[in-house]
Amino acid sequence: MISPPRGASRVRPPASADRDRWNPLWQGYLRFYRHHLPEEVTEATFARLIDPKAPLQGLVAERDSALVGFVTYQFHPSTWSLRDYCYLEDLYVDPAARGGGVGRALIQAVYEKADRAKAATVYWMTQEFNAEGRALYDTLARRTSFIRYERL
Amino acid sequence: MISPPRGASRVRPPASADRDRWNPLWQGYLRFYRHHLPEEVTEATFARLIDPKAPLQGLVAERDSALVGFVTYQFHPSTWSLRDYCYLEDLYVDPAARGGGVGRALIQAVYEKADRAKAATVYWMTQEFNAEGRALYDTLARRTSFIRYERL
Amino acid sequence: MISPPRGASRVRPPASADRDRWNPLWQGYLRFYRHHLPEEVTEATFARLIDPKAPLQGLVAERDSALVGFVTYQFHPSTWSLRDYCYLEDLYVDPAARGGGVGRALIQAVYEKADRAKAATVYWMTQEFNAEGRALYDTLARRTSFIRYERL
Amino acid sequence: MISPPRGASRVRPPASADRDRWNPLWQGYLRFYRHHLPEEVTEATFARLIDPKAPLQGLVAERDSALVGFVTYQFHPSTWSLRDYCYLEDLYVDPAARGGGVGRALIQAVYEKADRAKAATVYWMTQEFNAEGRALYDTLARRTSFIRYERL
Repeated sequence: MISPPRGASRVRPPASADRDRWNPLWQGYLRFYRHHLPEEVTEATFARLIDPKAPLQGLVAERDSALVGFVTYQFHPSTWSLRDYCYLEDLYVDPAARGGGVGRALIQAVYEKADRAKAATVYWMTQEFNAEGRALYDTLARRTSFIRYERL
Repeated sequence: MISPPRGASRVRPPASADRDRWNPLWQGYLRFYRHHLPEEVTEATFARLIDPKAPLQGLVAERDSALVGFVTYQFHPSTWSLRDYCYLEDLYVDPAARGGGVGRALIQAVYEKADRAKAATVYWMTQEFNAEGRALYDTLARRTSFIRYERL
Repeated sequence: MISPPRGASRVRPPASADRDRWNPLWQGYLRFYRHHLPEEVTEATFARLIDPKAPLQGLVAERDSALVGFVTYQFHPSTWSLRDYCYLEDLYVDPAARGGGVGRALIQAVYEKADRAKAATVYWMTQEFNAEGRALYDTLARRTSFIRYERL
Repeated sequence: MISPPRGASRVRPPASADRDRWNPLWQGYLRFYRHHLPEEVTEATFARLIDPKAPLQGLVAERDSALVGFVTYQFHPSTWSLRDYCYLEDLYVDPAARGGGVGRALIQAVYEKADRAKAATVYWMTQEFNAEGRALYDTLARRTSFIRYERL
């Protein structure tokens, strides 16, 4: 593969060798949500992301041999369609790499995966106060009227 | 099984023989969302709901041998947990039967299914302006800060 | 013009002879917003709606020779486009005629006017708690992240 | 004109000679919305802003001979009033100049223009997650319950 010009990011599936470089991104993502995950969950999640047969799928953005972002997604059925829906579960870009199109490239890469899988739609959830994320999402998607409820 | 007292509803999985009684509820639900679904999608959805091997699952509420409500749900993996999440996709109660605990009974029946499956949580989405639904949900679940974005 | 089938509504510009039939709709609309308008404003507004040279434009929905709804709109320039934007200012459907596609037909008629005028977009504002309206709008438009501020 | 004290900003209409100094502000504003505009739109917009006969009007804030902010606005008719409404479309303050009253001065200058034009009101739209902007707007205006829908 021809290397992209310096500064551009390349989006690709994660591989086993990415484990140590993926971890700081994953931890930064969890810190953003002030969420603590047992180490065994992180282990299992990464193992599923690099397993092509697992339903959880992921992509990483690489720039100058550093990982600068990742996204995870999965397909699931819907009562409203004969086609699956694509649920984008996690998205994170290294704060130092923001503003350079990495988040946009990751979302668009999921759109391509969804197109190839003939998914009916792609959707995700974000906190209503996530200003930085929503400024990007508003250019790529529509904010729906739906809010999320969770069992107590 | 001992019959419930007259007026109370019984929640159970849908069966093939429910098709004609389920349809008016499903159509009422779609009208609520002003959504038109091709007949083939409705057919396929009902077929999946009564197929114990299909990932889409459902429950109906029956009262005095009439169907008065239904719920659909599914389990899917999550990057945040070793356990599956339970996604409650659709919920509907016949307007004539509202206010009698049918919606609550359907949600609680899904909670029990989720417990049995050791799901990490149960969640759903609703329109922020769905006053009637939210008045119920607020007693059974917490409104998170998450809003839904959908690909354009 | 061939009459539409009984029950369907026809969307057309208002005419001088509609004044008395338009008024109850306009008053119903104002009541919805609990807004009192001096009679002279109502007079002037109707006069502008039937004046093809005035920037305020309108359409009415007629069914069985009764007016059952109306919409008003206008074009204005934008700093973001060489094309005008189309602002849909008012929309109202007689409560007795709701659920029959009148609101949808009025919005789509404005979309056609906007297309003919090569407008860059069509937009409107609604109260976040307008459940009935938003259930319709969600099928025809996207809820943006924008909220309205007004001078004190 | 007596110069304002050093540090204070002066609000005035833009002039042809401001083109090069206005551009970085305009581009910063577009970056905030992650919006790309063809160069010809920017050209046409600036040309309209300095044309006293064009409906699009603007003001710039100048401090120590640097431009530190701008606002654009326009008047349009309303079905609810015999007077025009004043729509404030764009507002931007150089990040380095924020917190010094520039945004407030620009909004108040529009209020004065609206008073002189006997406008019924002044309004604008902002993203619900624009925390920085809304902290200012809440001191000068009221957040209404209106949200914006846009044609798909």
